[in-house]
Amino acid sequence: MGFVTTPLADLSPADLAAFLETQRAAYEALKGRGLKLDLTRGKPSAEQLDLADRLLTLPTSTRDADGVDVRNYGGLTGIRQIREMFADLLWVEPSQVVAGGNSSLSIMHDCLVHLLLHGAQESPRAWAAEEKITFVCPVPGYDRHFTMLASHGIEMVTVDMHEDGPDVEAVARLVKDDPSVKGMWIVPTYANPSGSVISQEKAAALASMDTAAPDFRIFWDNAYAFHHLTEDEAKSADIITLCSAAGHPNRPLMFASTSKITYAGSGVAFLAASEANVAWYTGHEQFASIGPDKVNQLRHVEFFGSAQGVRDHMAKHRAILAPKFAAVDTALSTELAGLGIADWSKPTGGYFVNLDVLDGTATRVVALAKEAGIVLTPAGASYPYGKDEHDRNIRLAPSFPTLGEVETAMAGVATCVALAAAESLAAGHDDKVAYEPSIGNPEGA
Amino acid sequence: MGFVTTPLADLSPADLAAFLETQRAAYEALKGRGLKLDLTRGKPSAEQLDLADRLLTLPTSTRDADGVDVRNYGGLTGIRQIREMFADLLWVEPSQVVAGGNSSLSIMHDCLVHLLLHGAQESPRAWAAEEKITFVCPVPGYDRHFTMLASHGIEMVTVDMHEDGPDVEAVARLVKDDPSVKGMWIVPTYANPSGSVISQEKAAALASMDTAAPDFRIFWDNAYAFHHLTEDEAKSADIITLCSAAGHPNRPLMFASTSKITYAGSGVAFLAASEANVAWYTGHEQFASIGPDKVNQLRHVEFFGSAQGVRDHMAKHRAILAPKFAAVDTALSTELAGLGIADWSKPTGGYFVNLDVLDGTATRVVALAKEAGIVLTPAGASYPYGKDEHDRNIRLAPSFPTLGEVETAMAGVATCVALAAAESLAAGHDDKVAYEPSIGNPEGA
Repeated sequence: MGFVTTPLADLSPADLAAFLETQRAAYEALKGRGLKLDLTRGKPSAEQLDLADRLLTLPTSTRDADGVDVRNYGGLTGIRQIREMFADLLWVEPSQVVAGGNSSLSIMHDCLVHLLLHGAQESPRAWAAEEKITFVCPVPGYDRHFTMLASHGIEMVTVDMHEDGPDVEAVARLVKDDPSVKGMWIVPTYANPSGSVISQEKAAALASMDTAAPDFRIFWDNAYAFHHLTEDEAKSADIITLCSAAGHPNRPLMFASTSKITYAGSGVAFLAASEANVAWYTGHEQFASIGPDKVNQLRHVEFFGSAQGVRDHMAKHRAILAPKFAAVDTALSTELAGLGIADWSKPTGGYFVNLDVLDGTATRVVALAKEAGIVLTPAGASYPYGKDEHDRNIRLAPSFPTLGEVETAMAGVATCVALAAAESLAAGHDDKVAYEPSIGNPEGA
Repeated sequence: MGFVTTPLADLSPADLAAFLETQRAAYEALKGRGLKLDLTRGKPSAEQLDLADRLLTLPTSTRDADGVDVRNYGGLTGIRQIREMFADLLWVEPSQVVAGGNSSLSIMHDCLVHLLLHGAQESPRAWAAEEKITFVCPVPGYDRHFTMLASHGIEMVTVDMHEDGPDVEAVARLVKDDPSVKGMWIVPTYANPSGSVISQEKAAALASMDTAAPDFRIFWDNAYAFHHLTEDEAKSADIITLCSAAGHPNRPLMFASTSKITYAGSGVAFLAASEANVAWYTGHEQFASIGPDKVNQLRHVEFFGSAQGVRDHMAKHRAILAPKFAAVDTALSTELAGLGIADWSKPTGGYFVNLDVLDGTATRVVALAKEAGIVLTPAGASYPYGKDEHDRNIRLAPSFPTLGEVETAMAGVATCVALAAAESLAAGHDDKVAYEPSIGNPEGA
């Protein structure tokens, strides 16, 4: 299909009709292949998980460096060795780190629950007692962040995500006068799904901006801090120091985990924040937990050996992942370059490629792909309530399938993108009525 | 001190004064030994934890019986094999079981949080939106149950715990007309700290009683279901079937874990409840979790092999624990039998001995013991807000120390009980004024 390189919108009706026929034929051929491929979630592949299989026979000891029997109850903040290791990696002090269970999402939810039921140190009352709570959500963003807020009836207002982070002027305007705006989400490094990395300047702006709410919190989900895809390794902005320097030490709550370092479901998750926030968190968690799984923490300490061990391990992931991301770019470039119907990110880290297709066709692309056996994240999933008003954003997750599967799937996706665009443009030529997808949104966000 | 066998209250002032002097001398000798012993928490000993050390090199596989890679994300209800194993043990269907993380306390807290923020299926509104929420608390009970409620401002009303379970007539009266009474705690089998086991009749009464609240919940903390100390193995009442038969299928939420079976901090915790409650729980948890640690679940499946494997493993715990519980009884009997100043449980399972001392002396006993290097659970800890109005209840936890340490500690505790009682009675002879402890409550509950 590379034989057309004119922007599709500039084609004559006859040429467009011919292009559409070509794409229809290509799509029928695609369907005939009986594919069964899944690009929906940012899951590590079995090959990546294998890298950590030494965990299965660790730890060799049952006592931590302080002599504590890790098998027994207690130790709400986690064992000292893993806190020190990840304090080093996250550029904070060990006293600013809590090592928890297997899910940073759960720590995020715990923080949100404590805020709803008790409020923060500076809160006039529990957040649940407020008439309205609003979060600022850079878009496109992580669907689980948004569904968590929606599940608690928290309102969401969006700002645009750019290559160097969110539109901080827009954020500053939203938080300045409205005390209901209590928080914001951000994936600062290799963002889900845009791949963008927040600049120091933008991080500093978020740290120092005036907020009407005295208890404003930045949920800083540093899920991909060490997840580089190139030698150009992004350094995460040091939001905790920036906020502290700006006089808002309790503003950031940083989250991280080893889920995409060792085992996705059996890693160690972390909260990093001011000591006051650590005390706030453990002050509530003491009523809810007998302590984290310290055996798994010691297992990870022995596995990594040191902070450098974590970095070295990430290089092995990069060797597996980088070719898959290259394959996505190659497939999209080969099929779609020059057609003016798609734009996609070339991330230097993280787990996703952000694909923007012709306005109004994302839902159709996902439906076409599904019919051809290629499951994509539902269109709009990267927006609050699953609503992408332009219907153009698709999140691609190439980590889980094999390289060959990624190549096959992405060639198929490119066909769907071209077909949907041609259909849409041809419909415009035909009767200028609004495009109606014939298959519809296959599933909720 | 066994030479006096007359009830202390019946001694003449002179004989009591002599007894008091003897106890003072014994206590000074006790202090002189420089002990450092801890009977505070129901923690397994290192010897018990060693029984599960094969876990350290398990699992040998990374796929469950359904072929799922346990290392990756997902599987909110836990892997099928461990659900089936514990469904068998807990007398429920696998579809009524969720296998979670390492802490049943966390599952209890999650349930309470979902009730507070969203309510149950039958709730007119979220519990946090009610003016008042009240729980019925059998006493003495588990301090962490009470502090969890207190942390959320939930009111507690108490009923007495008897050998065959709580005073169910008192419970029925409390729940009948007051819709603010939304729940109750109970440790049904080998209760903490009384060791009592609820009878089928009492369980049936709780299952069928009328409650003013349509969304009344029994938090059925079956922490010691398999933790027998004798061959007379108690069968837990089948509260889920009883409630279902009585037309209240969603009333019970059962909790259990392997914390006192394998590793206290690294076990697997369970929720068992009606399928509707399982759907309610996972319906909220889906926004808060990427799934439990399935590797640890498979590790436990391989370790136990079968439900019978769990029962067989518990026999090894019994062999370690039973002599410690016998030592507690021996020490107390030797020193205190016949004096009319102490009463204690002889549990056939669980982790605690319930010691009732002379009214008004529990705080003094704990303080005396602490001064002599024997740390006991704070007096009153088994009551809401730490308030035992009779100041007579002390919870003894003999599992963690060695057998020799239990013997030493309990002889010392007996001395403290006798001294505090003699002080109290002598003060009554002297001036009939209220007893004032000279040391005071050493720490909060």
